[in-house]
Amino acid sequence: MRSTRTAGKVFSSLLGRPFDLHQPGELGRVTTESSPYSIVLDIGYPRCDPAALMAGAQRATPGWRAAGPRRRAGLAVEILRRLNTRSHELALSVHHTTGQPLCAAFRAAGPHAQDRALEVIALALAECERVPTNLRWEDTRDARRGKAPLSVQGTCAAVPRGLSLLIGCPDYPIWNGYPGLFASLVTGNPVIVAPHPRSVLPLAITVRIAREVLAEAGHDPDVVTLAVREPGERLHQRLATDPMVRIVDFIGSARFADWLEKQASQAVVFAHRTGLNTVIVDSTDHYQALVRGLALALCRSSGTVRTTPQNILVPTSGIATDEGLISPRQFGADLGASLDRQLGHPTRVARLIGAVTGEEVRASLAEAARFGAVVHASGPLGHPEHPGADLRSPLLVRLGAQDDRIYAREWPGPVAFLVVTDSTSHSLAVFRRTVSRHGALFAAIHSTDPLVLAAVETAALDVGVHLAENLTDDVPADPASAVADLPGGDAHFVTGRFRVVRSRRHAPALNPAGGPVTGSGELVGA
Amino acid sequence: MRSTRTAGKVFSSLLGRPFDLHQPGELGRVTTESSPYSIVLDIGYPRCDPAALMAGAQRATPGWRAAGPRRRAGLAVEILRRLNTRSHELALSVHHTTGQPLCAAFRAAGPHAQDRALEVIALALAECERVPTNLRWEDTRDARRGKAPLSVQGTCAAVPRGLSLLIGCPDYPIWNGYPGLFASLVTGNPVIVAPHPRSVLPLAITVRIAREVLAEAGHDPDVVTLAVREPGERLHQRLATDPMVRIVDFIGSARFADWLEKQASQAVVFAHRTGLNTVIVDSTDHYQALVRGLALALCRSSGTVRTTPQNILVPTSGIATDEGLISPRQFGADLGASLDRQLGHPTRVARLIGAVTGEEVRASLAEAARFGAVVHASGPLGHPEHPGADLRSPLLVRLGAQDDRIYAREWPGPVAFLVVTDSTSHSLAVFRRTVSRHGALFAAIHSTDPLVLAAVETAALDVGVHLAENLTDDVPADPASAVADLPGGDAHFVTGRFRVVRSRRHAPALNPAGGPVTGSGELVGA
Repeated sequence: MRSTRTAGKVFSSLLGRPFDLHQPGELGRVTTESSPYSIVLDIGYPRCDPAALMAGAQRATPGWRAAGPRRRAGLAVEILRRLNTRSHELALSVHHTTGQPLCAAFRAAGPHAQDRALEVIALALAECERVPTNLRWEDTRDARRGKAPLSVQGTCAAVPRGLSLLIGCPDYPIWNGYPGLFASLVTGNPVIVAPHPRSVLPLAITVRIAREVLAEAGHDPDVVTLAVREPGERLHQRLATDPMVRIVDFIGSARFADWLEKQASQAVVFAHRTGLNTVIVDSTDHYQALVRGLALALCRSSGTVRTTPQNILVPTSGIATDEGLISPRQFGADLGASLDRQLGHPTRVARLIGAVTGEEVRASLAEAARFGAVVHASGPLGHPEHPGADLRSPLLVRLGAQDDRIYAREWPGPVAFLVVTDSTSHSLAVFRRTVSRHGALFAAIHSTDPLVLAAVETAALDVGVHLAENLTDDVPADPASAVADLPGGDAHFVTGRFRVVRSRRHAPALNPAGGPVTGSGELVGA
Repeated sequence: MRSTRTAGKVFSSLLGRPFDLHQPGELGRVTTESSPYSIVLDIGYPRCDPAALMAGAQRATPGWRAAGPRRRAGLAVEILRRLNTRSHELALSVHHTTGQPLCAAFRAAGPHAQDRALEVIALALAECERVPTNLRWEDTRDARRGKAPLSVQGTCAAVPRGLSLLIGCPDYPIWNGYPGLFASLVTGNPVIVAPHPRSVLPLAITVRIAREVLAEAGHDPDVVTLAVREPGERLHQRLATDPMVRIVDFIGSARFADWLEKQASQAVVFAHRTGLNTVIVDSTDHYQALVRGLALALCRSSGTVRTTPQNILVPTSGIATDEGLISPRQFGADLGASLDRQLGHPTRVARLIGAVTGEEVRASLAEAARFGAVVHASGPLGHPEHPGADLRSPLLVRLGAQDDRIYAREWPGPVAFLVVTDSTSHSLAVFRRTVSRHGALFAAIHSTDPLVLAAVETAALDVGVHLAENLTDDVPADPASAVADLPGGDAHFVTGRFRVVRSRRHAPALNPAGGPVTGSGELVGA
């Protein structure tokens, strides 16, 4: 891996100039990004005719399919190896386009994200190779009548479903984008990568490296292309509903996921709803750790990303803790105080808080503060190195369970609601109702009661969301199963990208003019 | 297995009376079937309120999910074992409702169909058990700083997607229905079975046996229910688009498959298009075998089923054969003569030809005969045992490649077209265009030219249809991979029916108040 200094130079060399990809159908240049850290990006991406990109993918398809899963997986690993050497540059590109703190951006763009991709590559290869390539069987019915058995040989093939569209997201373009990209590539599908206009660079670098690897290996580079849109252009919608597009990957709002599942009916849609991350607080043996952990979670990269908790559900009767019964009001005050302590040091702020990249976050903060009781107001924070960066502390608003028209929708930016419910079982009902409708990246429960834990586990299974139980620390997600985070869980995420098609013929050794056979057969080899 | 005579008695005992299922929400009785073999069926199925069936399935869901994949697979096998003892009765029910000859009905309803189901059960169990149930990992970052590592344990669960709808088809209710039914059951999803009004009994018997097995094992029998509709009632459409229905299985016309994929956007749709079964004839070394095999295929159960070839593509320059160059006109005449030979014996007719069950087949035959040149006219045939049965010989009409408004749609009944193309590569283009749009159960190629075979193999992969090469006999489908016939190929057919959801917590041995951890972890056991 190159040093951070070199990576910084490479990154700087990308700024203020066209970003070349040598793709078909170039119509002009488009510049859509700006860094919240007062650096001028001004990168001009090629805007290409979508029809030309799709035609390019179609031309590239037969060769990519013919390469077979092992070679495709090998090239995918080579793409990943080169991306790995560019981790710092990718981290800077995520940092400057999403506003995430640099250390968080490195986690979201570097080896951890590559690890997820590697797991998907291995899984996709394994699933392709589970398809038996050669079969041979005999019909023995005639043998019983004294005739030679009729031998048939068959070939199975994992047939790629077709052109794949990756719709990039503005907060985790690489972390969320790589699994679908590499799953489609290894299963033999060309991919059009359509980044969010606010964060193009991380995926543009990725596409350029992928095209380089493909071309060097003698493949048509149009197996992977970048489709950049102007802000306001409905390119994602146009591509997603094109009859040629057979796979769509998207991680983001329930609204767009719903739209995709309804409108992109010609495609398999892998949509993951970020939705309403929910924390149910019932009781705890470690109150201080709970408050500190939750405050930290509310801060983490909270400028833009959707991985912070939004809805914190507490019963009106209070929380039983090792420090006695804590009322919702007291809990809110303690959370607010902990937030202030976390954000007391400028260097810590720079490490924890992301810079706001879009107007929608500022609008969201202003709007949310008008509802309910503001428990912790969002205020500007100073960045020690980038005085121009717009950093905001988390907003925490107390609501009643009846205010679901407010908390039962996704709020961009560092907006969280302390929702006071009638009881923990009421919290559970609110959780079920809101998350089954809007999805969530995760849910968390704090309780010392095994019955409550069991009930929440069942509810989390019912609504299909990952659950953390009594984890007061910012514990890493399951490192052994990155893919389990993906839409639909592991195997389906890759098996949905191909079909199995068979052909069969007489086995060569046999006289094809044998008598008619109508019965069943027996497998003689695989 | 009980004797045929006993099965006949059991079958007779079902006729002319209500068929009890003890399902929730019974509104009345509905009778929709009639046998083309002059037997009065007059079976009254319970018509149930769809909302009550869905509510019943919802009530049954937690217990069925909690049973786990091994127990569910065990019960599925027990259902199958009992179905196996009723094979003759099931065959009679398929014979009398679909019109298929009895021997064909036995193949489509008996051990062969059960074999497919057994394969799906094994596959679904294996896929569920691939999900790791317990994970444990440690965060060693703090250990490097001299602190004890933080241990986290995780649980993964294969969460059933939800209520499954099986839309039965009128020609192969069991053969086509069992894979989806058993895949959904083993992966933990309750199933509403909605048969085609023309063929209810085979699936009604199946549902009754499934409910008996479930109840005897202490499970809620509403895991499996039957939803019978009156002719003309849009019950299938209503159920398929209900928000509660999360999985839909359908094998049939491209038109309804398209509708389902568009409208049932809340569900995973496993739709298989029967479409345009196509035979491309280029050249052969065994002309007589080719003609005989093709004539036999045109006859086979041709009263109703969609497994006969519809479009036979031949180049206008003729077919190179071991008997010289055969013109399309000569080929048509030879096929017609072979059809007449095949149908020369009444007992053979009864074994080969299915009885027409619906007006649409008669209308289809009448309409198709008005286009092009009739090469072999469809005429009535006598059944040796059922003089009242309406048996029709296959219709073969010669068309030009330009007549695609005629041959590029599905024709019910024994209708086939000899389509004369400019050349074999033109045949290939016609095949690609029509089958990629309408699907097909299979394609076949006859050629002695390896280049033609390779081109057709590629085209078959492109359009995703199974291919038989130079198989002049009625060779059994690959017995080792029944599931490969299913929509989407094997693994996806079951993995699409569940999601993987994780929960995680501190490993019990550890002090949960350990310091904050933000790095990645290492897997220490699985």
